[in-house]
Amino acid sequence: MKNIIVGLLGFGNVGTGFAAILEENRKIIENTLGCSVIVKKILVRDPGKYRDTVIPEELFTADADEILTDPEIHIIVELIGGIQPACDYIKKALENGKHVVTANKAVIALYGKELFELADKNRVSIRFEGSVGGGIPIISSLTKSLAANEIEEIVGIINGTTNYILTRMDESGLGFQEALAEAQSKGFAEADPTSDIEGEDAAYKLAILTHVAFGVQVNPKEIPYTGIGQISEKEIDFARQLGYKIKLLATVRRHDGCLDLHVHPALVPFEHPLAAVSYEYNALYIRGNAVGEVMLYGKGAGSLPTGSAVLGDVIEVVQIIKNKIGEKNTFADKYQFKPKAISSGSSAYYIRLQVKDRPGVLGKITTAFGRNGISLESVVQRGRGGLSVPLIFVTHEADREMLDAALKEVSAIESVEEVASILLVQNKS
Amino acid sequence: MKNIIVGLLGFGNVGTGFAAILEENRKIIENTLGCSVIVKKILVRDPGKYRDTVIPEELFTADADEILTDPEIHIIVELIGGIQPACDYIKKALENGKHVVTANKAVIALYGKELFELADKNRVSIRFEGSVGGGIPIISSLTKSLAANEIEEIVGIINGTTNYILTRMDESGLGFQEALAEAQSKGFAEADPTSDIEGEDAAYKLAILTHVAFGVQVNPKEIPYTGIGQISEKEIDFARQLGYKIKLLATVRRHDGCLDLHVHPALVPFEHPLAAVSYEYNALYIRGNAVGEVMLYGKGAGSLPTGSAVLGDVIEVVQIIKNKIGEKNTFADKYQFKPKAISSGSSAYYIRLQVKDRPGVLGKITTAFGRNGISLESVVQRGRGGLSVPLIFVTHEADREMLDAALKEVSAIESVEEVASILLVQNKS
Repeated sequence: MKNIIVGLLGFGNVGTGFAAILEENRKIIENTLGCSVIVKKILVRDPGKYRDTVIPEELFTADADEILTDPEIHIIVELIGGIQPACDYIKKALENGKHVVTANKAVIALYGKELFELADKNRVSIRFEGSVGGGIPIISSLTKSLAANEIEEIVGIINGTTNYILTRMDESGLGFQEALAEAQSKGFAEADPTSDIEGEDAAYKLAILTHVAFGVQVNPKEIPYTGIGQISEKEIDFARQLGYKIKLLATVRRHDGCLDLHVHPALVPFEHPLAAVSYEYNALYIRGNAVGEVMLYGKGAGSLPTGSAVLGDVIEVVQIIKNKIGEKNTFADKYQFKPKAISSGSSAYYIRLQVKDRPGVLGKITTAFGRNGISLESVVQRGRGGLSVPLIFVTHEADREMLDAALKEVSAIESVEEVASILLVQNKS
Repeated sequence: MKNIIVGLLGFGNVGTGFAAILEENRKIIENTLGCSVIVKKILVRDPGKYRDTVIPEELFTADADEILTDPEIHIIVELIGGIQPACDYIKKALENGKHVVTANKAVIALYGKELFELADKNRVSIRFEGSVGGGIPIISSLTKSLAANEIEEIVGIINGTTNYILTRMDESGLGFQEALAEAQSKGFAEADPTSDIEGEDAAYKLAILTHVAFGVQVNPKEIPYTGIGQISEKEIDFARQLGYKIKLLATVRRHDGCLDLHVHPALVPFEHPLAAVSYEYNALYIRGNAVGEVMLYGKGAGSLPTGSAVLGDVIEVVQIIKNKIGEKNTFADKYQFKPKAISSGSSAYYIRLQVKDRPGVLGKITTAFGRNGISLESVVQRGRGGLSVPLIFVTHEADREMLDAALKEVSAIESVEEVASILLVQNKS
């Protein structure tokens, strides 16, 4: 059968990975598909820069329309990143009857619904496995193998930068800044790491997962997120002594007909499979009402892992083209959740207070918690003496509003110097 | 659009789980598909037995042909298990132009190639996600999301019974028989657990994974396997002290143009993600040349998890029917491996000797290893005194034949009483 022609937008980290895999694994891919996948054109800002590469210079162009309107091109692979012009290019490609594969989390999180509808209208496919979790088969698992499930909860470690930093702080006692610097030197953190560190990157990915799992497009900007900038090596040490790792978790769960969504550093019990996810690795822990718990684990970023996801999507789209399938791209609103459904929900909490070690202070604090309906699972005091000592509480499941009321009362107790930390605690499973 | 009609063969553990999920999640499935999935007939041995269930009695039949030749039925879901008559029913269904979904590992491992070709010939689909790893999305990940990869290695914990037993022996110091009895009482081991315990069940599943990942049908009876019957709580304890868990691993890897395949209890370093896979859980650790390491984790058996996989396949086949796709079911022989390619390959090994603690014995043993080209990573002696003491060696990567030659020489040393254990050691990753 005739070959499939691809137009590539962008030739950065993921684009070069995509091209390298396509070349390296050409034979297996041809054996699988019964045809070749040919990159005809590559959009770059400055084609002159690629004069001395192994790729023929005439493949490069700075003119997007040359690719988007080429009648020979079947599939547009968008790897520019960022919102614009990527989003307009994707739209134009779909309108021109071209299939689209992208790894662009910002565009899919913000404009997914509109783009999926546009794809349906033009009877083409749009795929985005690479937009969350690098090479981990997340989107396809949720849409296919787990399609028979009512998804109850997804808890993900979906930001490799923060997971690398937290792992290094845990295993070597590095401070946050040192660990960040190391992550940057190893290529696991960008020069400006703000979006990763503050949890914004994870919120965008969580919005995509929510759309795929629940059929609801949520504005990522409305997802409450907290980053790891406030996590000290001391906190990680306290958590370890209590049997927990601190991880940046992105969570969505169904809860009384609502969706609870948030990105937050949380204590994960050692026994939980997510506790073993270290360094730059990502993992998704999914609970479905039929399958029970499933976890998908792998490299959440990088040239080759993300390139693998993109090329996997391309291979599937080639099979769709060969079989002349009209695929449905939009996600059914399976549960008819209301848009007010965004909340940060209830959880167990880890609270660290700094207190003066005086007789009776613990009694006053626990009474204040009790009066506000906060039930405690454990209390640990580290150190002794009249100086400031940490007092650590782990609560049972509690409403955040009730917890805040309790902590207001606790703060007013004379010997309590500071509410030093409030972190979520993940259930054992 | 019109509804999709299913004929169900078998109504045991997985069959009832399948029906329960279809009922429980009916609304989500209808929202996803835009049509209903209706079970029209169920094949059972004795229809009278189901007189008082919630399912209308007239759905049950003891006559397979009533289902296999019903022109209204689109999809046959085969959940009888065992080789015959299941295999003949699947063939007849395919020949009658019906799509087939099965969770039958024996039939797919032994007759997969023939059935996939028959499906292609009749332009229908055959799916078998439930045949390996229960509800974990393994087959779809290998065939779709990871399709762009050259798979280098798959290492799986794919037998829940043995993993449950090993976990309980490890955490509570139970003996093998006690742990087995507990597994049986909890429904994690069958009354006759032979096939699970001895590794045969894992070998069948490994054959399926090999077919899917490498396009080669391997006779499961030719895969070398060793079970866990010889693993004592003492061995597990020694391994733990060295930083390892003992797991029953099913491994296939590419190696000089050959495939190494085996099922064997092995030492897995604590840091390896497979070490954290406990109780009845299964996991597949996959290494691809683009994606790097991926792990898929979940419940490997059980009514609902396997029912989830089966219904996930049915949902995909419904989409195939709706879109009038002619799908290709056969796997391309991507690598042109030769059939002689089955070997148990080289590995690092854990060797426990029982020796009389006499001066010079360690020197004689290490000299014998060295003379036979076996390089040692570590040596540990537990206990002291003239009595029989354990001496534990972990080797670097070694050929099994060379190791056997070395051990023959070691056995002949006067103070060496016994080569008590030989186990594989999994790489750190």
